[in-house]
Amino acid sequence: MKTSQILIPTQKEAPNDAQIISHQLMIRAGLISKLASGLYSYLPAGLRVLQKVEKIIREEMNNAGAQEILMPVAQPAELWQESGRWDQYGAELLRFSDRHQREFCLGPTHEEVVTHLAAQYLRSYKQLPINFYQIQTKFRDEIRPRFGVMRSREFIMKDAYSFHLDADSLQVEFDKMHATYCAIFERLGLDYRPVLADSGSIGGENSIEFHVLADSGEDAICFSDESEYAANIEKVAFSKQVRVCTPKAVEEKVLTKKKTSIEEVAEFLNIKPLNCIKTLIIKTTNGYKALALRGDHELNEIKVQNLWGEFEFATDDEIKRLDLKQGFIGVNALSLDLVVDYTAEVMCDFVCGANEWDYHLTGVNWGDIEFETADLRNAVAGDDAPDGKGKLVIKRGIEVGHIFQLGDKYSKAMNANVIGESGKAVTVTMGCYGIGVSRIVAAAIEQNYDDKGIVFPASIAPFQLVIVPINYNKSTRVRALADELYQQCLTAGIEVLLDDRKERAGIMFADSELLGIPHRLVLSDTHADNGNVEYKARSEPDKIEVQFDDALTFIQSKL
Amino acid sequence: MKTSQILIPTQKEAPNDAQIISHQLMIRAGLISKLASGLYSYLPAGLRVLQKVEKIIREEMNNAGAQEILMPVAQPAELWQESGRWDQYGAELLRFSDRHQREFCLGPTHEEVVTHLAAQYLRSYKQLPINFYQIQTKFRDEIRPRFGVMRSREFIMKDAYSFHLDADSLQVEFDKMHATYCAIFERLGLDYRPVLADSGSIGGENSIEFHVLADSGEDAICFSDESEYAANIEKVAFSKQVRVCTPKAVEEKVLTKKKTSIEEVAEFLNIKPLNCIKTLIIKTTNGYKALALRGDHELNEIKVQNLWGEFEFATDDEIKRLDLKQGFIGVNALSLDLVVDYTAEVMCDFVCGANEWDYHLTGVNWGDIEFETADLRNAVAGDDAPDGKGKLVIKRGIEVGHIFQLGDKYSKAMNANVIGESGKAVTVTMGCYGIGVSRIVAAAIEQNYDDKGIVFPASIAPFQLVIVPINYNKSTRVRALADELYQQCLTAGIEVLLDDRKERAGIMFADSELLGIPHRLVLSDTHADNGNVEYKARSEPDKIEVQFDDALTFIQSKL
Repeated sequence: MKTSQILIPTQKEAPNDAQIISHQLMIRAGLISKLASGLYSYLPAGLRVLQKVEKIIREEMNNAGAQEILMPVAQPAELWQESGRWDQYGAELLRFSDRHQREFCLGPTHEEVVTHLAAQYLRSYKQLPINFYQIQTKFRDEIRPRFGVMRSREFIMKDAYSFHLDADSLQVEFDKMHATYCAIFERLGLDYRPVLADSGSIGGENSIEFHVLADSGEDAICFSDESEYAANIEKVAFSKQVRVCTPKAVEEKVLTKKKTSIEEVAEFLNIKPLNCIKTLIIKTTNGYKALALRGDHELNEIKVQNLWGEFEFATDDEIKRLDLKQGFIGVNALSLDLVVDYTAEVMCDFVCGANEWDYHLTGVNWGDIEFETADLRNAVAGDDAPDGKGKLVIKRGIEVGHIFQLGDKYSKAMNANVIGESGKAVTVTMGCYGIGVSRIVAAAIEQNYDDKGIVFPASIAPFQLVIVPINYNKSTRVRALADELYQQCLTAGIEVLLDDRKERAGIMFADSELLGIPHRLVLSDTHADNGNVEYKARSEPDKIEVQFDDALTFIQSKL
Repeated sequence: MKTSQILIPTQKEAPNDAQIISHQLMIRAGLISKLASGLYSYLPAGLRVLQKVEKIIREEMNNAGAQEILMPVAQPAELWQESGRWDQYGAELLRFSDRHQREFCLGPTHEEVVTHLAAQYLRSYKQLPINFYQIQTKFRDEIRPRFGVMRSREFIMKDAYSFHLDADSLQVEFDKMHATYCAIFERLGLDYRPVLADSGSIGGENSIEFHVLADSGEDAICFSDESEYAANIEKVAFSKQVRVCTPKAVEEKVLTKKKTSIEEVAEFLNIKPLNCIKTLIIKTTNGYKALALRGDHELNEIKVQNLWGEFEFATDDEIKRLDLKQGFIGVNALSLDLVVDYTAEVMCDFVCGANEWDYHLTGVNWGDIEFETADLRNAVAGDDAPDGKGKLVIKRGIEVGHIFQLGDKYSKAMNANVIGESGKAVTVTMGCYGIGVSRIVAAAIEQNYDDKGIVFPASIAPFQLVIVPINYNKSTRVRALADELYQQCLTAGIEVLLDDRKERAGIMFADSELLGIPHRLVLSDTHADNGNVEYKARSEPDKIEVQFDDALTFIQSKL
């Protein structure tokens, strides 16, 4: 294709609302265009990238025996009422009424529709296992759409749903999808990691997220430095520990006037935060609880939710009503349930609030204090890995895929049964497997860019090669050579872009670098004098002179 | 692919709501599944057909130099308010509010979004002409969705929009799209016709519809039996005629008591309807009008709209208030504007109502009656073709494509300007080009079926070939031969379905015929004894024995 035949509206400046690099570069490279908050159009070069991602996903899903279908974007409320999610799902579910005042939603996901299909068409265990997928437009009415196509309202997703007679069969398919996702991200050329994850509101036991590693990632991922262990920080589980220290100190009350944070208290007492206990008050559906953590640790809210359901932090007013002193709460003589984190439980001679205004206690030990224990905290770098091998390292990741073992949550609610081998009806067991197709494009850029722009992995670059002729519109020799090379590449099936614009070389170079085209050939009269072309890889600093006659072979060796 | 690996839930009975054959067969063949009124899921085999249609369209649009983009399904109200269509478009435009109470619609078409894009990115005449297209989900909230995917609410459309400096450039692209559409429908293997059409509410001057010919088509298409002339009946234009008869009769009032329809009057008076005049009363925004047509002709409502805008037929009450006698209205002494159709104008000695209860007039001539004339009627078979060559023949068609010259309707309203050669801003001129992708699947079936099911054109059949082994699960010899042939076909790149089910031959034959697979090979122990396989084309009645060793070559010759 020639640059004159494709609209690639590059621009020097990124819009003000583009906070992250992929958003900035996708706009600057002319890949996408904002229509409204969280709604983007894919321009020609952007759509080429998106379609390449789709193609790889489709091929690997087909290889895995999954069957492609296409379900409607609009979904009737009745199905969501059957599954119970019509009332559970918050404002992200965009609901609307049709002209006959029937209620619908724009699908953020398709569990209900596909389970309805399964209930209709799956009759016998002989039809199982079966896995349906689609690549399709989804809609989530995000309260603050941001980061371009990374967190947009309308987006493209590959969602797959498998149906099984039992958990063993589900496990086999789950493992197959795990392998398929690895194959997909390998082919995409991304540095990614499958990590243990929490299932959240989708439900089910086991779930694994696939993250593209990038410093800008929203999620913290924990890896062992010695084993294969990897988990989303929200999922890193710690076990009860054995105390190795011996209580020695004598409890003492010290005036810590106005020092209410762990950092302030530690500095004032010249100790480390890890020698302090922080006590947090939460409100659960079963009343208030005090949670004790080591001073340098953070509460893991997902773990709290999984223990006691939805919860909130107690407000200042509530703390007052509980007769507690905000900033000076300790673990002694509490009138409410105390739950101590496993790591906090094995501390000796620690500092905590005195439950009295302006005082803390030093040299505290658990002694006679009554409490329960639980795993309450987020992992930190250096923690022992939960599998017992090595220490945890923390990196940032962008979630681009998630696979779940749903079990019978939807199939039970929606009567998706088959006749089992024994002749009796069996509720099917389900898995579901999502990939954020449009999000992959943004994540690939977050992982692959430099100060000149995008450095696309070869597999998804909008073009494999750009030919930049200098003075294409003035030098008939350059034009003839460029055209010849361009034709050779086209004939060889290379996705080549010939920059036939009347632009300065600098602009043409900058545009192709911004766009992240992996390979570049430059042709000028000087090169022609020497029978050469100049080659440069987008990802390498050096330029190489190549004989014009060898250029095609050379490029083919690079692809 | 093996039948055990793909869900094709064939069924004997069609659902009650399936009135037309394509709807019945698509459900029966397991191509689609109804989710709700006007919402269908594409099952695996149906999606294969849809994707083949998409691929052909995409390739031909790319060949024509159009650039593929992808715009959101959800569109902000602001753009529709700019174009003026937010208020004009009726209840088919599905409107909704997001969580912040901002108004949106689900796009039934994308003129606004693409013109907004053009206004943003097209700056100079040097960027023109340019043609953007997308293949994407559309939504029209039909009041009575019916006929399966033929008239569904959510559907897939290819819509393209071109931008030009002037009408000449638009005409060039319009002609190119005309040729491209012909290439697409040729490749699809459909019997189709491009016909002159009315532009309707989309606006613009010239428009051409592409119809797949089928007896069940909703549209009447008029062809000349001697020339290339072809037009939607709503667009067949007639010119003023020269009277060839001579008024001879004397006007007479006859008692026609209770005979109020043309047919009743004609029978009663023993004349033909074509010797009668029927007078219709309509209400326009400029008041009531009486329209006179030859008794056997039908009013063309599009022509009336194009003359006087939106209109309604006068109600019985309104006719009473105008002091007219319903069933006995004539052309004499009318107190409202009379407009006479060109064909009615050249009649002599005709019969019409007497404007008096229970009386008609015979032997009427126009004489002193005051009236205007216009082209008001639908064509009928046998009419002279408007190009003066031959007579009109009428066939039924299904509209699957429509190309328009929009002019500046949207670009003016939405300020899509470029800097012209002279340095001044010029409003761009637009064309738009639609194809109903999902509708093509239904139309192809309406045109290609028999009592056994679908007879898909080879280009869009879900599979090219089905191999039906008899006793695949019992005869190791049959199984080995079938597997060998299947592998040969796969290796040769043939889209082959191997029916590996434990079903009776009759069921396997019926299913593959229902599904419309163009070629079938049957293998049994008897065939194996003779070293043969049995071949049958879906569209031919005869079976042919082919040497097993020649089977692949034979099939390749058929594809």
